[in-house]
Amino acid sequence: MKAVVLEKKGVINVREVPDPSAPGSGELLISPHTVGICGSDVHYYLNGRVGKYVVEKPMILGHEASGTVLEVGPGVKGFQVGDRVAMEPGIPDMYSRAAKLGLYNIDPSVRFFATPPVDGCLSEKIVHPAAFTYKLPDNLTYEDGALMEPLSVGMWAATKAGIKPGDIGAVAGAGTIGLLTAASAIAGGCAKVLISDVSQDKLELAASIPGVVPVNLKEESFLDRVMEETDGWGADRVFEASGNLKSYDDLWRLGAPGNTTVIIGIPADGKIPMDVTEVQARETRIENVFRYANVYQKAIDMVAAGKIELKPFVSRTYPMEQAKEAFDRFAEGHPEDVKIQIEVPQNH
Amino acid sequence: MKAVVLEKKGVINVREVPDPSAPGSGELLISPHTVGICGSDVHYYLNGRVGKYVVEKPMILGHEASGTVLEVGPGVKGFQVGDRVAMEPGIPDMYSRAAKLGLYNIDPSVRFFATPPVDGCLSEKIVHPAAFTYKLPDNLTYEDGALMEPLSVGMWAATKAGIKPGDIGAVAGAGTIGLLTAASAIAGGCAKVLISDVSQDKLELAASIPGVVPVNLKEESFLDRVMEETDGWGADRVFEASGNLKSYDDLWRLGAPGNTTVIIGIPADGKIPMDVTEVQARETRIENVFRYANVYQKAIDMVAAGKIELKPFVSRTYPMEQAKEAFDRFAEGHPEDVKIQIEVPQNH
Amino acid sequence: MKAVVLEKKGVINVREVPDPSAPGSGELLISPHTVGICGSDVHYYLNGRVGKYVVEKPMILGHEASGTVLEVGPGVKGFQVGDRVAMEPGIPDMYSRAAKLGLYNIDPSVRFFATPPVDGCLSEKIVHPAAFTYKLPDNLTYEDGALMEPLSVGMWAATKAGIKPGDIGAVAGAGTIGLLTAASAIAGGCAKVLISDVSQDKLELAASIPGVVPVNLKEESFLDRVMEETDGWGADRVFEASGNLKSYDDLWRLGAPGNTTVIIGIPADGKIPMDVTEVQARETRIENVFRYANVYQKAIDMVAAGKIELKPFVSRTYPMEQAKEAFDRFAEGHPEDVKIQIEVPQNH
Amino acid sequence: MKAVVLEKKGVINVREVPDPSAPGSGELLISPHTVGICGSDVHYYLNGRVGKYVVEKPMILGHEASGTVLEVGPGVKGFQVGDRVAMEPGIPDMYSRAAKLGLYNIDPSVRFFATPPVDGCLSEKIVHPAAFTYKLPDNLTYEDGALMEPLSVGMWAATKAGIKPGDIGAVAGAGTIGLLTAASAIAGGCAKVLISDVSQDKLELAASIPGVVPVNLKEESFLDRVMEETDGWGADRVFEASGNLKSYDDLWRLGAPGNTTVIIGIPADGKIPMDVTEVQARETRIENVFRYANVYQKAIDMVAAGKIELKPFVSRTYPMEQAKEAFDRFAEGHPEDVKIQIEVPQNH
Repeated sequence: MKAVVLEKKGVINVREVPDPSAPGSGELLISPHTVGICGSDVHYYLNGRVGKYVVEKPMILGHEASGTVLEVGPGVKGFQVGDRVAMEPGIPDMYSRAAKLGLYNIDPSVRFFATPPVDGCLSEKIVHPAAFTYKLPDNLTYEDGALMEPLSVGMWAATKAGIKPGDIGAVAGAGTIGLLTAASAIAGGCAKVLISDVSQDKLELAASIPGVVPVNLKEESFLDRVMEETDGWGADRVFEASGNLKSYDDLWRLGAPGNTTVIIGIPADGKIPMDVTEVQARETRIENVFRYANVYQKAIDMVAAGKIELKPFVSRTYPMEQAKEAFDRFAEGHPEDVKIQIEVPQNH
Repeated sequence: MKAVVLEKKGVINVREVPDPSAPGSGELLISPHTVGICGSDVHYYLNGRVGKYVVEKPMILGHEASGTVLEVGPGVKGFQVGDRVAMEPGIPDMYSRAAKLGLYNIDPSVRFFATPPVDGCLSEKIVHPAAFTYKLPDNLTYEDGALMEPLSVGMWAATKAGIKPGDIGAVAGAGTIGLLTAASAIAGGCAKVLISDVSQDKLELAASIPGVVPVNLKEESFLDRVMEETDGWGADRVFEASGNLKSYDDLWRLGAPGNTTVIIGIPADGKIPMDVTEVQARETRIENVFRYANVYQKAIDMVAAGKIELKPFVSRTYPMEQAKEAFDRFAEGHPEDVKIQIEVPQNH
Repeated sequence: MKAVVLEKKGVINVREVPDPSAPGSGELLISPHTVGICGSDVHYYLNGRVGKYVVEKPMILGHEASGTVLEVGPGVKGFQVGDRVAMEPGIPDMYSRAAKLGLYNIDPSVRFFATPPVDGCLSEKIVHPAAFTYKLPDNLTYEDGALMEPLSVGMWAATKAGIKPGDIGAVAGAGTIGLLTAASAIAGGCAKVLISDVSQDKLELAASIPGVVPVNLKEESFLDRVMEETDGWGADRVFEASGNLKSYDDLWRLGAPGNTTVIIGIPADGKIPMDVTEVQARETRIENVFRYANVYQKAIDMVAAGKIELKPFVSRTYPMEQAKEAFDRFAEGHPEDVKIQIEVPQNH
Repeated sequence: MKAVVLEKKGVINVREVPDPSAPGSGELLISPHTVGICGSDVHYYLNGRVGKYVVEKPMILGHEASGTVLEVGPGVKGFQVGDRVAMEPGIPDMYSRAAKLGLYNIDPSVRFFATPPVDGCLSEKIVHPAAFTYKLPDNLTYEDGALMEPLSVGMWAATKAGIKPGDIGAVAGAGTIGLLTAASAIAGGCAKVLISDVSQDKLELAASIPGVVPVNLKEESFLDRVMEETDGWGADRVFEASGNLKSYDDLWRLGAPGNTTVIIGIPADGKIPMDVTEVQARETRIENVFRYANVYQKAIDMVAAGKIELKPFVSRTYPMEQAKEAFDRFAEGHPEDVKIQIEVPQNH
């Protein structure tokens, strides 16, 4: 079969690789249809590593995927050949201590698509556990399906934030994750969400979500605006989605007494400054999130119900043979781009 | 001043009563504008009592009110003469043990409008604590403002349900409270809410809320439909808002593993049958709610943001001098009616 | 190997049965040492069924067990031959939707020892998943180890109660589960726990737990005593562990505003009367528990740390060849008995 | 009456000050008996300020107090002249938005003893709201009563940690607050608590609490020991009580997957470094605490029940006339000292 292979740092080829073996017990053989590009894919492409994970041999890229079921393994219930599906990319050991607690995303032994040495799913076929595969309702496209992965990041942040109905949210950063977090927070119970960025393109996209208030940091202070919109009380739920250290200049003062602040973005050096005086004065609860757990189905339900509209967030789509162009486009960093996706030819 | 007085069981007069005294420290003098009629008002009218509360002397009716600030008492900050406001009708002792915990609604010494011997607010003037008065944004009408009280019941139920973003809800009963609970559950984070009733009028109103699925009990089983819509998993959040014992035939089986079921409606004799086998099999959490706490502002924010639309729920409006007709209309029990409101003349 | 077999209703034999097959991947071969008798075992013995579970062919009894590791299956880490262990008796499908959420105990497909047609562990050898096997520290005996099962019921009830440090608890019923719940609630953060029963034997055992206040229902009202000990506030955490309908005469009034009431006991017909007026007045949260999840290790840690002392709760021990006498003794219902255990001969 | 007055930075006098006015509605006149010295008192003494709070005129010191009721104000229920009591030192506006939510400790308008310009309670008489005064059971001494204040800090940290029965705790720092936090965590549900320090004196005191494991940082690594005692899993609940930046070298790695880490200590500059990689890998929840709310009664109940033993923590007691010596002793910083208390003469 064909796959998009990162041979080593800086070198991407679309080439033949061996077919996966037949699906085992509890597994599905799936034909990926649409695969989104994530910053981590590009990071591997440009740097050959992300933190402790190093590309030491050729690796298939991609972890944000939807596709079609080609074959159903033994013992699998609820799936049929031809089902349109989205695949949750992390496969934990469900018998680990963390997984038994429901924290399967932080099981240290989790195998995650396109995290060396585990191959990704930008290929014509993959084998995947049925327990981490989700059927797409008729009103979701494959493009929507491939967006379930980054949307799940936003949905998980909104879940861990403990939103109460009618809360006011504040999101620092309107990149893909910031936008999907804002959409999740609104759909997930906030009455209103303020979002800050320096890119007018991104803020215009944000403003297309009903209930989202864009704040251009070139023009006004996020803290001042949050206080103005909340009568001086502060935001009930705060999300840091920029990964930019400058965001911390006022982050800890955005929250109301008893607020929850969720840290999603990771600064370059992995360290952030916590202002104890400010967080103690508000008894801020800080939640730290790692990917997501148990939200894929809920993300699908939100989009199927029309509570989250994803189409505005797909900026460009490339055919698989132009995968390198897609990664290069991402690497160039165009502020008007949100999600770039790749379509895999369906030859089955 | 004029007021709507329940003289005794069955006798309502619109007549002169003494003006309230001037607002004290922390208080406001308010001119009520719109007052909704609640089942408890009608219950006092028809029966002269609700449970242990007995009408033993004439009492002003009404507890669902919006109005205009006439005078600001000493020490009050944040209010001005002319502010349009909604009034939370229960006034607790904030120094009680329950109130210190944030549970001010279940402080046993709470004084609640139109609960004997405490007068209600269907009058030309009332004095009310600023801490339990909330300003209405420009895009909320007085009619909306008077609906903040029943909406707060729904918002509180949705809050106590612990909704996670993308949950599926099920509401038994599409009366006023059931409808407002469904609207709150959707706005509060559910992807989809099923609601059951036998009244097609009510179900059509329910269907006007995006994301709400009406289920006519004359035509199909609520349990079957909930299971069909959730792929056999059940509803994550269940709300009993009918107060009808028949609802319990399948109520405990509507919920998914780990669901929360919120009991809002009260059957005539105050007793409900709990099926231990069913609730243990799902480890159902049951939440019981009494009025609401800390949700008035959030209810206002939801409506101001357009996440909850109240206009369809106001069925009829009467001028104050026709208050008796309004109560009689309610007492007749028309299935097409949701909320009936009374307008107080503004002579100040 | 030898095992204690319930041939059919009323007939128990200690006889030869086939050895289990060798431990597979992730499994251990274990030699049970001590096995406690539970009411459900006796129920199957006397009635041939419990609810929908019917004894249709011979079944090995027993599910409360400790033992010694005889053989370690492929891929198992952290265990060695000779390890002293306790076995959690329910084996869920960890890939089910409930298990992924951490709710593995309410996965409908869970296989539980000695629940027809699944065999129990009152035999010389069993094969068990390592993920549901827990090592016993040196200061726990095999008798302690076999008590981890009923202790886990109490620990789970205490966990679901959401105890805050210094809370006051109230437990209705001082049978084995009531006693272990009281011990768990004290060790789990309550300052004081009141416990009620009609058996002076049981109450004396209860009084041996520091912080537990016994209340003899023949002499005083549980409600009065709870109110007296809490200055009229009520208990913060209430546990129903009697399964007796009479307990509900005052159960819903034992709790303080904002209390959590945990239902553990199941009345004969599986139905309990819930008094809506009382639970709404306190906004009582009701938790329903089914066995336990993720508490075996914590139960072991509590006993190892000396925070829970189990020795007083083992009333009698029988050798395996006298298993029938042990079951008959339990069936006779001696009020002075708490736990009866059976010792399996160690011939390996 | 006599009082201990901080005239200005560095100058303490025991001298006459005006009597307080008579107790108003809801208030008590109390004769303080025992008053503990806290680091903040000494900070004001040595530096004339703590953060933004500056001593600009003479101020009575002291906020950790027990005493005797001398007079009961109008409308007060539940208190009598002669009652032995402890006084919660922060008096919030119970009608503030934060207080209505139960977060009265973080109401910005709270008035706190001995925080300029508010006087403390190291005097012969004070007037205090009954709602923030708690009766001492017979088995608590005045010394115990004065320790309710720092114990409440530990109890609140243990409460916000969300301890589940049988959790393992880790406390960095064995100063007064660290010790009382460890005691609260054990009494509040932990099976075992490890505590680190460099002072052998403090660690020996810590070791006197059953279930507490002292770790001398001069001899071993806290991280290594925590991992050893938890089989590599980590601590479920982590408490930073040292305020020492060195503690952060391994703090974020002490916790287990899904742990909660509570920050109590404040470093000199109010900033701490948060390692995002580590806290995301565990999805650590970070709780920040400010004083305490709703735990005074629970702290009293814990000590009355014998679950927390305070006597080892009172190191020295001085008569009021030697108050300056007491403050100087504290200022010298003797590692063997935990709490130093002052006794007020009882001349009423």
